[in-house]
Amino acid sequence: MSEENRRYALAERPEGLIDDSTFTLETGPVPGIGEGEALVKVKWISIDPTNRTWIGEEPTYLPPVQIGETMRALGLGEVIESNNDNFPVGSLVNGLTGWSEYTLISDSNPLMVVPEAAKTAPPASLLGILGMTGCTAYFGMLEIGDPQEGETVVVSAAAGAVGTVAGQLAKLRGARVVGIAGGPGKCAWIVDELGFDAAVDYKANDWKQQLKDATPDGIDVDFENVGGEIMNQVFGRLNINARVALCGLISGYNATDRPPDLTNFHKLLINRVRLQGFIILDYYARFGEAIRELSEWVSQGKLKSEQTVVEGFENLPDALNMLFKGENKGKLVVRISD
Amino acid sequence: MSEENRRYALAERPEGLIDDSTFTLETGPVPGIGEGEALVKVKWISIDPTNRTWIGEEPTYLPPVQIGETMRALGLGEVIESNNDNFPVGSLVNGLTGWSEYTLISDSNPLMVVPEAAKTAPPASLLGILGMTGCTAYFGMLEIGDPQEGETVVVSAAAGAVGTVAGQLAKLRGARVVGIAGGPGKCAWIVDELGFDAAVDYKANDWKQQLKDATPDGIDVDFENVGGEIMNQVFGRLNINARVALCGLISGYNATDRPPDLTNFHKLLINRVRLQGFIILDYYARFGEAIRELSEWVSQGKLKSEQTVVEGFENLPDALNMLFKGENKGKLVVRISD
Repeated sequence: MSEENRRYALAERPEGLIDDSTFTLETGPVPGIGEGEALVKVKWISIDPTNRTWIGEEPTYLPPVQIGETMRALGLGEVIESNNDNFPVGSLVNGLTGWSEYTLISDSNPLMVVPEAAKTAPPASLLGILGMTGCTAYFGMLEIGDPQEGETVVVSAAAGAVGTVAGQLAKLRGARVVGIAGGPGKCAWIVDELGFDAAVDYKANDWKQQLKDATPDGIDVDFENVGGEIMNQVFGRLNINARVALCGLISGYNATDRPPDLTNFHKLLINRVRLQGFIILDYYARFGEAIRELSEWVSQGKLKSEQTVVEGFENLPDALNMLFKGENKGKLVVRISD
Repeated sequence: MSEENRRYALAERPEGLIDDSTFTLETGPVPGIGEGEALVKVKWISIDPTNRTWIGEEPTYLPPVQIGETMRALGLGEVIESNNDNFPVGSLVNGLTGWSEYTLISDSNPLMVVPEAAKTAPPASLLGILGMTGCTAYFGMLEIGDPQEGETVVVSAAAGAVGTVAGQLAKLRGARVVGIAGGPGKCAWIVDELGFDAAVDYKANDWKQQLKDATPDGIDVDFENVGGEIMNQVFGRLNINARVALCGLISGYNATDRPPDLTNFHKLLINRVRLQGFIILDYYARFGEAIRELSEWVSQGKLKSEQTVVEGFENLPDALNMLFKGENKGKLVVRISD
């Protein structure tokens, strides 16, 4: 076993995108295990939009990462030393590993053993479609958005990890699904490969017109990942009794400028819209049911999953920025060891 | 019977508050009744925030009033001539009478006969706490806001027709109720007379601090009548799993300036808030149940109702502006005949 552990510690709260001064790479000894603890060698780290919210000043649904603390992140690893029978050596575990090559399982940092049935899935899937990402799409789309056959569903950040799954789930329900994504490549991909009915390229000058053209009957469900002017335009086309599953507001996470006005907020009133904000951790107790159903759909070929894999621990900060620049397709993960 | 009928017709869509050029007072013959029709002498007209939205350009939940058409409004009147057995002469009726001294009941303008049991109520109540106003507060607060004992409820436009009822209903549920109103007089009134637990004077310089002080445990239910910066500040204090009953956005109805940013919109996400826009007409089929319960509470002294009465048909336009200047306490009605 390597005698050294590298970790990224938060050095400075970023304004806008993270940069070289946001994190410091620190090297120290691999932590020793105490009573009831286990040591995990981290293999994969999940890059998620919410990571950015954890290093702002404002408390969100979790306390902000403090200066000097290891960057918080979901990851997947293997138990390599253990004083806890629940986590035998060789177990595959996932949870909040952080940006660290090794991490301890302890009372204050409980990880989950990956269930036997899921172990055959590709590791990136366990952080993606069969992990938190898939569960987010599952509960957000099927329970909150609740699309009916023939309704029109719009998914923003449609080529992202959650968006790709959310859109496909709405298709399984028989809805017309429109994805909003950045660039012609992603737009073609979500239609041709993932089966979306139409795509709107928000980087094109005429994206508002594209949105109108793609939703001739208005919008019944908005699976909202982005916020800002994209959300505002979607609000402007919401139908009576529409639902908004408010999953993320990624356009604001790095924002330093004044955001665009929500000039269409009043549509929520006029059209009797139900908007529900949600945080996937609230559904933790029901992850099992979601993952069972998602696994089935994946194995039946009804759901496709896509990953963008970045290699190497040292590329974690760049990977986080890739997400906000929209440089990933599907789930973005970093492989840090074999 | 007078041979003349006066009506206010829409002359010009207003920017901001209505003024002398918005309506023209037109005089014509009292309409004659055709087959199946009945003639109503209008006695009371209800002044409601939503009136303003009907004369904008944008279609809302009803088509905009067209230039030249009689101004749309709810009212109460008496049938004085009838070719329809459902509306015998002498019946008290309510519905969309418009700003007109006489109106026809016809297939395209069906009014409702006031039920026998409600006829003993003061006429202004039939347009207020026992009418659309009361129903709005009833369904918005009890079904959408759904306050629980000990929760904190905030009501904006708390001294207005809907706000006064909504706040009292939340008190009946055992919640702590904070009203936002304009000026020390109204603030004292909703606390001392209506039993609100605290009031926030939005016209005071320190109103944001007042809101904080009045909601030390955060806010569980927002009964939203106002929008703009008041709503934004309330959003900033919403608790996890809070509910927003989006009833009105009166601050925007006359707005010509850029509205304030909703800088706290993200709280809806972080705190898993459910926001539901509603239009009371959707609950039409259930008005009976609401009015029965509201009547009971009124007769038991558990609900107080207050009216501001303006005298005279010619004062209708001024009465509408009174509402937006906050010059009324409780329900605002215009008496146009005895």
